[in-house]
Amino acid sequence: MHSLRFTAESVAFGMRERDFLLGADGVPGVLFSPPADPAERAPLILLGHGGGNHRKHPAMTGRARLLVHGCGFHVAVLDAPGHGERPRTAHDEAEIAELYRAREAGQPEGPIVVRYNAHLARQAVPEWRAALDALQQLPEIGADGPVGYFGLNMGTAIGVPLVAADSRITAAAFGQHWPDALAEYARRITVPVEYALQWDDEHIPREAGLALFDAFASADKTLHANAGRHKELPRFEAESAVRFFARHFGRTVAAG
Amino acid sequence: MHSLRFTAESVAFGMRERDFLLGADGVPGVLFSPPADPAERAPLILLGHGGGNHRKHPAMTGRARLLVHGCGFHVAVLDAPGHGERPRTAHDEAEIAELYRAREAGQPEGPIVVRYNAHLARQAVPEWRAALDALQQLPEIGADGPVGYFGLNMGTAIGVPLVAADSRITAAAFGQHWPDALAEYARRITVPVEYALQWDDEHIPREAGLALFDAFASADKTLHANAGRHKELPRFEAESAVRFFARHFGRTVAAG
Repeated sequence: MHSLRFTAESVAFGMRERDFLLGADGVPGVLFSPPADPAERAPLILLGHGGGNHRKHPAMTGRARLLVHGCGFHVAVLDAPGHGERPRTAHDEAEIAELYRAREAGQPEGPIVVRYNAHLARQAVPEWRAALDALQQLPEIGADGPVGYFGLNMGTAIGVPLVAADSRITAAAFGQHWPDALAEYARRITVPVEYALQWDDEHIPREAGLALFDAFASADKTLHANAGRHKELPRFEAESAVRFFARHFGRTVAAG
Repeated sequence: MHSLRFTAESVAFGMRERDFLLGADGVPGVLFSPPADPAERAPLILLGHGGGNHRKHPAMTGRARLLVHGCGFHVAVLDAPGHGERPRTAHDEAEIAELYRAREAGQPEGPIVVRYNAHLARQAVPEWRAALDALQQLPEIGADGPVGYFGLNMGTAIGVPLVAADSRITAAAFGQHWPDALAEYARRITVPVEYALQWDDEHIPREAGLALFDAFASADKTLHANAGRHKELPRFEAESAVRFFARHFGRTVAAG
């Protein structure tokens, strides 16, 4: 039995925000929900943050607001291993140092990011599955409601093996990663997928991004490729992901 | 001076619909507008239909409704040469026969579509420019308001050289064509572009579609690639194009 303990509750930016600790290890997480007690259950979106980032980074709270305000969804975010309030291991420190070294030297970051994110995913995937076990016991979510996953960059490196492993997740928005460690998992994914990449990404070669999109076995999949470099992913892609979940979970998006 | 004569007016599906004939040749066109006289000028979207299709085909009236109801835009559609109410020349008949012959024989349609559409574009581009001259004289459109172009398939074969030639068009939604005759024009286009292709298109090779998207010189361009065959382009891409024009022309899309 996976336990989840709520540790704090507030209302901010029009969302109910509940901090929690998951399981014996106390993985920190947060659950964003509509501020009013809902009359009925609502879908849950698992939101995976990017590398060097954490569960309450503005990119996460911004996407949570779009999902909560726009569709009345619940949104859960966990700190990834070595991120946010979680300690870094010696291995984390060594990999991060190696990433900075490569960046300084003008060498490709891809091989380091790919192997480090794959390492983190091996720990994070069972944590997400345990969080989903616990969150589905809440009456406002329930055990048989729709569940989506939304994560870019490291959020994709963790999310692709997660969605491949857990059939409760029935729609996923990913983006901006390499196929090397992920294509084998993508080939097992058949649920609807929306995938974002940058056409002029200086880290992820165009062919690599297209190969990962191609690997998904989903009959319903959409690629959004925008001109620009890695960090220039347009903000409207977050709104697009919200519409993607609304479409698949039978909701309409409120004007915002 | 390019003249435009309105020949009929009605209100249907919540749109004011004005038929017109353009110029000495009497090219048939239609202008869809909000039903009420607008308080101020509104942007104009030029809508190019697909091959074998015409100005009032349901695909055109459906897109017009999204643009008129969602954003209050004006939408103009012309019958392309050899289409709708316009006579077919012997050359049209020969090319269409050749296309059907290739299709029956299981041979690639691309070479025939590319050359025939390029032929039609040489006639259609000056017709569209003349229509724009005339439409901009209407007080509800005006000479300096935003103008967009939206067309897929043959609508792209005509639209890409049109947008390359006419600087009044400042945003364009295209899709589903080959780069052979169009890439040279695309390389001159710098306005925002949204481009749709089908990832499993049985007529347009994936690399060909990606090459045409790549050719646009626009700093702001977005590719939407969906799983599925040529005719399976999802309907939600039309809604996306409406949002694209709304974003660039400073409008919001009404829930509809």
